[in-house]
Amino acid sequence: MSDYAVRLERLQGAMRALGASLAVFAPSNQMRYLTGWAEEGYERLVALFVPAQGEPAFLVPAINAQHAEANPAGIRRVLGWHDAQGWQEEVKALLAEWGLAGREARVLIDDELHSGHLLRLQARFPGLRCTPAGDAMARLREIKTGDELAALDAAAALIDAIYEEALGALTEGMTESELQDFIFAAFKRHNTTPSFTPMVCFGENGAMPHHATGATTLKRGDIVVLDIGCTWEGYCSDITRTFAFGEPRDLDAARVYEIVSQAHWAAREAAKPGVSGAAVDAAARRIITEAGYGAQFIHRTGHGIGLSDHEDPYIVAGNTVPLQPGMCFSIEPGIYLPGRFGVRIENIVTMTPDGVRSLNAEAPRQLPIINA
Amino acid sequence: MSDYAVRLERLQGAMRALGASLAVFAPSNQMRYLTGWAEEGYERLVALFVPAQGEPAFLVPAINAQHAEANPAGIRRVLGWHDAQGWQEEVKALLAEWGLAGREARVLIDDELHSGHLLRLQARFPGLRCTPAGDAMARLREIKTGDELAALDAAAALIDAIYEEALGALTEGMTESELQDFIFAAFKRHNTTPSFTPMVCFGENGAMPHHATGATTLKRGDIVVLDIGCTWEGYCSDITRTFAFGEPRDLDAARVYEIVSQAHWAAREAAKPGVSGAAVDAAARRIITEAGYGAQFIHRTGHGIGLSDHEDPYIVAGNTVPLQPGMCFSIEPGIYLPGRFGVRIENIVTMTPDGVRSLNAEAPRQLPIINA
Repeated sequence: MSDYAVRLERLQGAMRALGASLAVFAPSNQMRYLTGWAEEGYERLVALFVPAQGEPAFLVPAINAQHAEANPAGIRRVLGWHDAQGWQEEVKALLAEWGLAGREARVLIDDELHSGHLLRLQARFPGLRCTPAGDAMARLREIKTGDELAALDAAAALIDAIYEEALGALTEGMTESELQDFIFAAFKRHNTTPSFTPMVCFGENGAMPHHATGATTLKRGDIVVLDIGCTWEGYCSDITRTFAFGEPRDLDAARVYEIVSQAHWAAREAAKPGVSGAAVDAAARRIITEAGYGAQFIHRTGHGIGLSDHEDPYIVAGNTVPLQPGMCFSIEPGIYLPGRFGVRIENIVTMTPDGVRSLNAEAPRQLPIINA
Repeated sequence: MSDYAVRLERLQGAMRALGASLAVFAPSNQMRYLTGWAEEGYERLVALFVPAQGEPAFLVPAINAQHAEANPAGIRRVLGWHDAQGWQEEVKALLAEWGLAGREARVLIDDELHSGHLLRLQARFPGLRCTPAGDAMARLREIKTGDELAALDAAAALIDAIYEEALGALTEGMTESELQDFIFAAFKRHNTTPSFTPMVCFGENGAMPHHATGATTLKRGDIVVLDIGCTWEGYCSDITRTFAFGEPRDLDAARVYEIVSQAHWAAREAAKPGVSGAAVDAAARRIITEAGYGAQFIHRTGHGIGLSDHEDPYIVAGNTVPLQPGMCFSIEPGIYLPGRFGVRIENIVTMTPDGVRSLNAEAPRQLPIINA
């Protein structure tokens, strides 16, 4: 039995347990996880329809049908719909075949399906009771197999190496975009692809956790934040490193770095099987709050990772689901001081029976100074 | 009054005419059109809430708030929600303030909003009657202003120039990916970005309208299909060109090219103000069907273009909306012969009072032979 067949069977088991008759997936990592294939349809509907029992079907634009037919999961049924007719009649026939026409049925919907498609489904088939598929899929995906973990380990080793290369490329006066270009070229050289747009923040731009890399130039004394990740066999890596370029201009930078490092390690030590994501988040937050920077730690402590750069389990207040061996997630506390600088330290870890193991090399515990 | 203020006012007028009390936008080109700003939130909700009357509000993750506050439309209200609390309470307060709490209200939903967010909105606020915003937004966006047309013209001239450069880069034995890399580098050199992933199809790969550019090498006699586009001030270009690399191996290629060219021109000549997209599609399809290739023309004849590479008006059977001056769209009939080759010829045109004007240079009417 192939990995994909096992995954589909587990999904169908979960659907029956939830009383869901149908699941509908967009061309997302959910579809990729279940079938090995996903191709963006943009305004055209590309979907995988999975009944609670029996063989699934792809419903794709006619121009994508040939690709869908080559899906690695070997799903034989590919319904190609034509621009002139639309997809509604194909769905109607499928629902009729599966005994779901004209009656109430619970349907799991891919969280990334575009609302335009969902609203048209809901309007045309008012018996469908739609709820997000995310939780059910998270239960399937959050504990990694040995093969998945090997791919995550390889992706982590690769991004660690690319980070070291990026350090070697730093020159005074270069722009963030130039360093980003170097990183893009390194991805290409290593035969990998970014798992998200590499983020380069010089100086005060580091105070924005989602800064858009741009024309800011590197000055001596800047605090630099790099948040980068790549893929291996589809699985993602994601690290953030903070360092000073030359002696730091801001006299608080070394102290703030140490607080974030301590918070990072507090979260790492708190994370054990059976402990919740909320408790791990609290462990990091306590350190930062006690140091007086609680209001400057404006995001959760981490996110799961796998085929998606962000997936369950989330390391966030309110997430009471116990962490289990085989889960993989980031630990990435940060402190952001608008107009001054930011610090974030992020590793990917995997849960083992004894606690977490880092997939990445460790960041220094004191603020590193590059080109001192 | 800024362009953005005019657009928001037109939207609110349309909402009142439709009886919609609220519109909710994702970080899509709809949001960009209305506010000049859009930033992906991935699994986190980034949204613009527009009431039928009064000032809109952004609802964004706290880590994106600083960026949203710099929105070019000058929308002052930015609600930053925190990972630990989620966004539901912020929405509840907004709905209460706008008199929409606990009652039925019609809501326009951005077609690209992720279903996960929509389903949570629907579950938490069951009075919301959601329908796609696409049609209302299409009426605002499909007739371009002079400034928009100037940007589309500039994007078209740029992609025409890049196409000529790509022809100069062709060498026997190169891979599709190598030519794609050349095109990416040309985008960079011209200070533009791709409006979609440039598509390079050598030989039989041209028979797949959505081929994934890969390791296939260029052989003498191949029919080559290039589908490429770039942007200018956010506005898109999109052309497809077909040519033979050396004397064509397939003896039908020249004839099939002429049929597609005739279909292209038939559509161009049929497109007049007041004529429907369906009629333009039929004009192209008639030529191809009469030549015996109707079953091999497996997509619509065209799509509108603007901030989005694909938008209204669609040139497709069933679209009876009359074309009007100021609309911009592609004309791109094609014939696909699996295992052999494909031909598609695509220009962007704009409707004038007298018919359409091409934004792009014209493709030859006979199959061009490159490096004969």
